[in-house]
Amino acid sequence: MTPRIDASLLPRGFEFSAMACGLKKSGLDLGLIVSEMPAAAACVFTTNRVQAAPVFASRAHLRQSRHKMRGIIVNSGNANCATGPEGLGVAATTALKTAWELGRYHPSQILVCSTGVIGVPLPRRKIINAIPRLVRTRAGTTGAFKQFTRAIMTTDTREKFAAASCRIDGKLVRFLGCTKGAGMIHPRMATMLAFVVTDATAGPSVLQRALRDVVAKTFNAITVDGDTSTNDTLALLANGASGARAIRFGAANYRKFLGALESVCHSLAMQIVADGEGAHRVVEIEVRGAPSERAADTVARTIANSPLVKTALAGGDPNWGRILAAAGRSGVRFNPDRVEVRMAGILMCRDGRAHFFNERAAHRKLLAKNVPIAVNLHAGGGTARVWTCDFTGDYVRINASYRS
Amino acid sequence: MTPRIDASLLPRGFEFSAMACGLKKSGLDLGLIVSEMPAAAACVFTTNRVQAAPVFASRAHLRQSRHKMRGIIVNSGNANCATGPEGLGVAATTALKTAWELGRYHPSQILVCSTGVIGVPLPRRKIINAIPRLVRTRAGTTGAFKQFTRAIMTTDTREKFAAASCRIDGKLVRFLGCTKGAGMIHPRMATMLAFVVTDATAGPSVLQRALRDVVAKTFNAITVDGDTSTNDTLALLANGASGARAIRFGAANYRKFLGALESVCHSLAMQIVADGEGAHRVVEIEVRGAPSERAADTVARTIANSPLVKTALAGGDPNWGRILAAAGRSGVRFNPDRVEVRMAGILMCRDGRAHFFNERAAHRKLLAKNVPIAVNLHAGGGTARVWTCDFTGDYVRINASYRS
Repeated sequence: MTPRIDASLLPRGFEFSAMACGLKKSGLDLGLIVSEMPAAAACVFTTNRVQAAPVFASRAHLRQSRHKMRGIIVNSGNANCATGPEGLGVAATTALKTAWELGRYHPSQILVCSTGVIGVPLPRRKIINAIPRLVRTRAGTTGAFKQFTRAIMTTDTREKFAAASCRIDGKLVRFLGCTKGAGMIHPRMATMLAFVVTDATAGPSVLQRALRDVVAKTFNAITVDGDTSTNDTLALLANGASGARAIRFGAANYRKFLGALESVCHSLAMQIVADGEGAHRVVEIEVRGAPSERAADTVARTIANSPLVKTALAGGDPNWGRILAAAGRSGVRFNPDRVEVRMAGILMCRDGRAHFFNERAAHRKLLAKNVPIAVNLHAGGGTARVWTCDFTGDYVRINASYRS
Repeated sequence: MTPRIDASLLPRGFEFSAMACGLKKSGLDLGLIVSEMPAAAACVFTTNRVQAAPVFASRAHLRQSRHKMRGIIVNSGNANCATGPEGLGVAATTALKTAWELGRYHPSQILVCSTGVIGVPLPRRKIINAIPRLVRTRAGTTGAFKQFTRAIMTTDTREKFAAASCRIDGKLVRFLGCTKGAGMIHPRMATMLAFVVTDATAGPSVLQRALRDVVAKTFNAITVDGDTSTNDTLALLANGASGARAIRFGAANYRKFLGALESVCHSLAMQIVADGEGAHRVVEIEVRGAPSERAADTVARTIANSPLVKTALAGGDPNWGRILAAAGRSGVRFNPDRVEVRMAGILMCRDGRAHFFNERAAHRKLLAKNVPIAVNLHAGGGTARVWTCDFTGDYVRINASYRS
């Protein structure tokens, strides 16, 4: 699923670097994205009431710098959440030091992100001491970018990145994104760290609008375990280095821009689901015929988060009854006697009751890497699509001992 | 946890029997409760929009018989849900045959319950053929009652029953209850099969009122996996065989009656959690200081159903950050900087941040059979208490292959 990437896909004017500063037991745990020129920025943050210090800091920096950014610094291995005023201090100092080393910039031009365990003080010195070298070693190469994607991982088993491009008034514009996911994935808003950079030219407001539209259909349509993290941040930087004309909302170019952005975000979101903690397969849940779009979304998410549905999927069990039961408890009104359920394309339930199918063949099909589930409530015109993964013994193993 | 039971605890005028009629691969799968005289009945049913045929049948029977019942017939191994008009036919025929064999009663005097897999036709003949012998072999003995408790089990690993008694105007009144649980436990209303019989004298309306009050604090305060089943039924029969005076709502005797009923229901509910699929421990979650009772309940349930919290509990991991994060995504308003979290009595989070504690000692305490979690939001006077269990690899193993 992970795409290959070569230098021609790198947006102009961005550099990356990564280091191991000792927050994780081993491996890269500090990463930096830099734009050579000020870049317009748009962000989507977690909706959790408990928000980590870097989320507070980044929000404030966006306001102060009027959404013009120079870079993003990210650490893994520690969420810097529930760490009190000291945590806010570490986030602020991290931005300050990075801005200074990069070129005596104002600290508000730096976004700060953290991911990892909650409630453990983030060691200030380890990060501050590492920043000079992190800044010095930055490079606009695919190698540096790949190192960055590795530095933001926690329980992820592989790097996740995607690229796209489009032509804006004849000029080539490039998009490059990366993300980290795994657990606590249930986006009411963004629910992971994700970064997309582009050399398109766009003002912050058109950027924010585009991001909001795209997020609803991509990052916010996936769920791993229903738990929304305290640190989720999706940041989009556009530095205009392509020389293309500025994107304006509603213009023909906006659609192209949106299309490329969506393709990157969709790919990243699918990579997160595929690498969900312990996951063996990606499950697409499509609900049709709901009383409204919102109702369709509610039913789809209730199915997607049902432990009984997800464990059945782990075993390749064609247990459509659990899908029906999950829809029934979603709170959405429908007539159970009209419901239709398909798993892996096989009609298993029609008019709310069993429809004959070959159990063995179904079991084999349900063991595939990608399993579609389609539910038609026959109660209106609302549709929704969400993606999730199966719920395996490995999820439990990973999460029962995360901190030990 | 399971109490012992002797003949002196059996309410007068009730008989029980059980059989293996071939719905399960092996073991008892058909059970009967009979009252020698008409008994007042109160029931609480699932709130799932998808409801099984026996739930429809039992609701209708209660209305038709004006809540005067002669017996309850229960099968395990098949939920008779999503089985269409034929399923309703099987439920009706089951009641008809049972009523006839018992004494030419009207079929509406029989409650019908099923539990097991959804969407598989319930074999009518197996049940109908077994009923004559099931009726004939009924007995008012502890042995027969124990057989009945075994006949209603699905993935339960042990029988669950409880007894209580109280004096009403000098007369001894006895209560006896049993239940089956395991998965799909998330009571918005009752979420399992549970039966309580008493030889107290009470009209259906006072009985229904008492049941509703007790359910809120017992069966509706537990959750195993957030999935509400399609068949959940809690039935209470009172046949007056003790000769005690009738219970009236608000009278002094009502309190005693309520106390005994609650002690039975509380014990049954705790037994369900302790035997939750794959569970190693019972977790009590107490939320205080919420803006309202309802808000407290929302926060408590969000924590109780968080897979990340529940898997941490499986590993005895003092990961209070996940509790904080779950509270934060519950939708309830509070100031994260004032939150206090205790696990197993140990203060781990104060003013929304880490409070020093001994990790090793905490880990040891979290491996106990019973683990209390206390969260104080310091945002009002609302409190709530719910019970859940940990989320283990065994839960996944049980549910990934339930039908195979």
